[in-house]
Amino acid sequence: MLIVMDHRATPQDIQRVVDTISDMGYGAKPMPGRQRTAIGLVGNDGGVEAARLTGLPGVRDLIPVSKPYKQVSREWRDENTVVELGNGVAFGGDEVVIIAGPCAVESREQITDIAVQLRESGACALRGGAFKPRTSPYSFQGLGAKGLELLAEARERTGLAIVTEAVDPESVPLVTEYADVLQIGARNMQNYPLLMRAGRCGKPVLLKRGMSATITEMLLAAEYLLSAGNPDVILCERGVRSFDRQTRNLLDLTAVPVTQSLTHLPVIADPSHGTGVRDKVTPMARAAVAAGADGLIVEVHPDPPQALSDGAQSLYPNQFVEMVAQCGPIARAIGRSLATFG
Amino acid sequence: MLIVMDHRATPQDIQRVVDTISDMGYGAKPMPGRQRTAIGLVGNDGGVEAARLTGLPGVRDLIPVSKPYKQVSREWRDENTVVELGNGVAFGGDEVVIIAGPCAVESREQITDIAVQLRESGACALRGGAFKPRTSPYSFQGLGAKGLELLAEARERTGLAIVTEAVDPESVPLVTEYADVLQIGARNMQNYPLLMRAGRCGKPVLLKRGMSATITEMLLAAEYLLSAGNPDVILCERGVRSFDRQTRNLLDLTAVPVTQSLTHLPVIADPSHGTGVRDKVTPMARAAVAAGADGLIVEVHPDPPQALSDGAQSLYPNQFVEMVAQCGPIARAIGRSLATFG
Amino acid sequence: MLIVMDHRATPQDIQRVVDTISDMGYGAKPMPGRQRTAIGLVGNDGGVEAARLTGLPGVRDLIPVSKPYKQVSREWRDENTVVELGNGVAFGGDEVVIIAGPCAVESREQITDIAVQLRESGACALRGGAFKPRTSPYSFQGLGAKGLELLAEARERTGLAIVTEAVDPESVPLVTEYADVLQIGARNMQNYPLLMRAGRCGKPVLLKRGMSATITEMLLAAEYLLSAGNPDVILCERGVRSFDRQTRNLLDLTAVPVTQSLTHLPVIADPSHGTGVRDKVTPMARAAVAAGADGLIVEVHPDPPQALSDGAQSLYPNQFVEMVAQCGPIARAIGRSLATFG
Amino acid sequence: MLIVMDHRATPQDIQRVVDTISDMGYGAKPMPGRQRTAIGLVGNDGGVEAARLTGLPGVRDLIPVSKPYKQVSREWRDENTVVELGNGVAFGGDEVVIIAGPCAVESREQITDIAVQLRESGACALRGGAFKPRTSPYSFQGLGAKGLELLAEARERTGLAIVTEAVDPESVPLVTEYADVLQIGARNMQNYPLLMRAGRCGKPVLLKRGMSATITEMLLAAEYLLSAGNPDVILCERGVRSFDRQTRNLLDLTAVPVTQSLTHLPVIADPSHGTGVRDKVTPMARAAVAAGADGLIVEVHPDPPQALSDGAQSLYPNQFVEMVAQCGPIARAIGRSLATFG
Repeated sequence: MLIVMDHRATPQDIQRVVDTISDMGYGAKPMPGRQRTAIGLVGNDGGVEAARLTGLPGVRDLIPVSKPYKQVSREWRDENTVVELGNGVAFGGDEVVIIAGPCAVESREQITDIAVQLRESGACALRGGAFKPRTSPYSFQGLGAKGLELLAEARERTGLAIVTEAVDPESVPLVTEYADVLQIGARNMQNYPLLMRAGRCGKPVLLKRGMSATITEMLLAAEYLLSAGNPDVILCERGVRSFDRQTRNLLDLTAVPVTQSLTHLPVIADPSHGTGVRDKVTPMARAAVAAGADGLIVEVHPDPPQALSDGAQSLYPNQFVEMVAQCGPIARAIGRSLATFG
Repeated sequence: MLIVMDHRATPQDIQRVVDTISDMGYGAKPMPGRQRTAIGLVGNDGGVEAARLTGLPGVRDLIPVSKPYKQVSREWRDENTVVELGNGVAFGGDEVVIIAGPCAVESREQITDIAVQLRESGACALRGGAFKPRTSPYSFQGLGAKGLELLAEARERTGLAIVTEAVDPESVPLVTEYADVLQIGARNMQNYPLLMRAGRCGKPVLLKRGMSATITEMLLAAEYLLSAGNPDVILCERGVRSFDRQTRNLLDLTAVPVTQSLTHLPVIADPSHGTGVRDKVTPMARAAVAAGADGLIVEVHPDPPQALSDGAQSLYPNQFVEMVAQCGPIARAIGRSLATFG
Repeated sequence: MLIVMDHRATPQDIQRVVDTISDMGYGAKPMPGRQRTAIGLVGNDGGVEAARLTGLPGVRDLIPVSKPYKQVSREWRDENTVVELGNGVAFGGDEVVIIAGPCAVESREQITDIAVQLRESGACALRGGAFKPRTSPYSFQGLGAKGLELLAEARERTGLAIVTEAVDPESVPLVTEYADVLQIGARNMQNYPLLMRAGRCGKPVLLKRGMSATITEMLLAAEYLLSAGNPDVILCERGVRSFDRQTRNLLDLTAVPVTQSLTHLPVIADPSHGTGVRDKVTPMARAAVAAGADGLIVEVHPDPPQALSDGAQSLYPNQFVEMVAQCGPIARAIGRSLATFG
Repeated sequence: MLIVMDHRATPQDIQRVVDTISDMGYGAKPMPGRQRTAIGLVGNDGGVEAARLTGLPGVRDLIPVSKPYKQVSREWRDENTVVELGNGVAFGGDEVVIIAGPCAVESREQITDIAVQLRESGACALRGGAFKPRTSPYSFQGLGAKGLELLAEARERTGLAIVTEAVDPESVPLVTEYADVLQIGARNMQNYPLLMRAGRCGKPVLLKRGMSATITEMLLAAEYLLSAGNPDVILCERGVRSFDRQTRNLLDLTAVPVTQSLTHLPVIADPSHGTGVRDKVTPMARAAVAAGADGLIVEVHPDPPQALSDGAQSLYPNQFVEMVAQCGPIARAIGRSLATFG
């Protein structure tokens, strides 16, 4: 950490900062400059409570140097983490894994039908919400436990791994019982009780980036999972909030390679929420693969106009077939391939 | 709702939309224009599942007309909701209520000392976190239940109402037992299980605006509380995420009068989180009162450099005295006054 | 346009709006709803001065239906505009065109050397600023007219088309004399005197999206060019401002297909400014091609650490070779190819 | 400046950075840390071309310490700059100065009428655009030179100082001939040829913050003016772009005290563009005064529904009277007063 002093700071102010740093157990290294003095705080500053220093007279700015996260960092672990689903498919290796399915589980027929079609078209995992966080209390909130059972049936029928969301700590054990991957949604990225519970759930976790979370904040949220004992975390870029409402969110695809260079965890992309517009999903799925994403999560519904949620961004099944057909050559163009199984 | 057709939409496309609207139980009113046709959907469209329409051929855009929230709206209830604290103080009337206190309860001495000083200086309620949501798993997470007991002691000593946060549904009953006002923090604004539980807690709720929540989303979050049976909700503007990191957040003071014109609920402002910088808290507290805020929530710590969290934005007790002294005349200048009690 | 009335609007208020609309020469179509009345304004509302209506009693909201731009729209012209450079290369067809070069022209040796290398590696056009808009008045501002001459020499030597920026109306004639494509930078996207002058310059214009411009605003800026008589406009996504400073800007690749569906003009991407980080340029160049961009504009410098501007985001020449090698297969995977000439 | 090395940087990498810094004429001070080494660059780093360092092997990050601007800084000049208008009124002292008037000059009658009313109601300066930058080429673009003459007539009649905009370098001399204060609008904040010309115009300049400009960028834009020889610059917060379209822009009132602490130049606020909504102008004008703004610039039109631009955010003359009446006591509450003259 670097403590930048005001240009009017007195020698006494500087000495007080140096003493406080020593008092906190770190080394202090003053660097007098032409305009002002900066003081280096030497040692791992991840745990420094900056306020003790900010409050001192003559201090203008504190500049962190170390990253605030540890176990998720490439400095902690250099090689990629490979997260295995139950069915022989894994995120974080050479293969690009496609998760697909409806926003919400609506009925046995809906989820089974689409699962069979997705299995044939190249998906390796089935998404579908049983518990749905909805902006309005008057919107469809999911089938709950019944939805989980229907997902399990679909898995039995198709072999697809199940990715589904938990929305509070209490439901983590129930969701974990049925899911192969526990999803934590964007609105819950900083729901720490939920993260801590998911960190002990024993299944891989898919953590979506919050609506306006920085990459550092996403990595700190993942750190909650790893520090609670769960090494199997998949990160997901799903678009951030922006000023242009042509799209539902602004898909930040550069976050894919940026995050991959900071962490050993696999990073996938969600072009459905990332755009919110059906006919932009396929081009952005292609772009995500080209940018190096380790996987995709895509909304597909057997009959989007009848969907109980997110219909406008859900692909028709035949559009999904086309999307996979387009993504395969892109993956090969960069030396990867789409994952398959069974 | 208005359905805007593409300029290439055929008469058959238009008829299909009209039929679908009828099928959904609403009236349809086509308006042929020079470039394209728009179709009015007549009736309360709050519950319309737009996807049934978005998916139809020839449909270009859906434009909502009605607001998606109901009970929080001024159209539902015209006069201001007045939220009473236990000690005779109320939000939503002519008086401007000041909540103050440290970010977190750290010890009996810390919270009692500051409570006594705040009581003398003009605060009507004491804030202080017992459960703290923190970006990093390695930061101080609060004293938990012990913190709640210390808050209750401080109330007994001073008569200040207690405002403190619940971070998950499970802890709502415990927090409610001690708190006069249950706080839901910015990160949890869209934590729906928490909102639903808080909606049944029997105490007023202070709901903070999410980091990048629109005003509509904040009102929909409040709608969760009202629709679950809790009419006593106080909204709080606390700054939104922006591109300039000179301040921690961008305090959106215009949101105060905008929200007040849309809802009957009281709206307060948090200049501490809204700026993140100690010496900007007082000017922005003044500005919030001038903009018409129904109250302020401000961080004050007996010794900010030693604070375990948010020290950089916490006022010294004497700065709080000065802040109150400056806000009083501002309140009077617009025909209000600072609340007092006892 | 739709005029939404307040729920308390009186029949007189509604009649006044209807009369005003008629008075303005449009048709009015009231739609009484359950909560409130909306009034359709029928006719092309591109030129409606909304304020006459917003100001009337009982009016709550005005909702535009028509798009505010005309000649740039796909509704005005359905087939793609193809913009030809002098050397037989064109934007807007099947081929993906690569523009490359240093941020600024620094010397004859620098620009000639890099031009020769770029020519061999697959670029079709050479970028290089002679007039540089710089955030600080103390930064290098470009070689001016001398830089233009050096660009022309590089063209003569290599056959590459020249893309270079004009920063004020006065210099448009001079820049046009040397350039094959006149660039208008992000900071100048809404510099209307410059746009109007460039609209009469007789050369194609490359218009970069402003730092926080909506797609609609970018299209309106292009409308200035077309309405002044210049049909040859290339749009460029180059990243927008966001809250996460891991990257210099947030490259909004979804804007590529979104813009292409709204306009007939070609749309390219700038992964150099879009990321600001050298080792993220190639993945995002690949992603841009995969998303369907009609071209790329990339910064390459013979010796980035010695660059007088933008060195941190400039590729080394061998990295550019590698980038082109990776983008070719991506283009072919979606049925396109990289443009070549000569 | 601080150069942060990667944790895998070799001693050779570190030495190369130290040598390069020396080579550039600065001092280098390595600080080995537990995880990595940071190297302090000692000396005024305002002019350092960072790219020479970013490009070196093992370098992870460059952290600037000095501010990039000079003459606008409080470190350059500690006491407030006082900018005098011709009529005895000044910005930057104890008085709060109100500029008011229509968005655009539309006719002699319009501008004279409103000027007379504003003079009586407490304005000290008259705003009104003769040259208007408009998002659409089809919108009213101003009366040009004729508008300037009408402004001069209004000044003669009322004594109000004239504030009006120049939109390109060519028109600066003409505008300066008529204006008391030359305005540079938000879209032109980084129009450097315009800034450089305005820096030599001999009249005070009102510089508005760009739509998504950081405070640092606004100060650098002002630095263009000061470094070109013009010390009389007034800065103006007018709202930044945000994700919530309830208001036209997000008025960043905290920017007022933040900017005032960084620069000696006066800082005013524009609640009209900052909100875009007529009935939010007065509360935010009050808030701006309470936050410490040195002045206000407000749109007032004799008949807003008939305004040729910005009607929706223009006050009626009687609303302006009320606004001034409310702002006076707020100014007095913080020890200031509204400016008057004549």
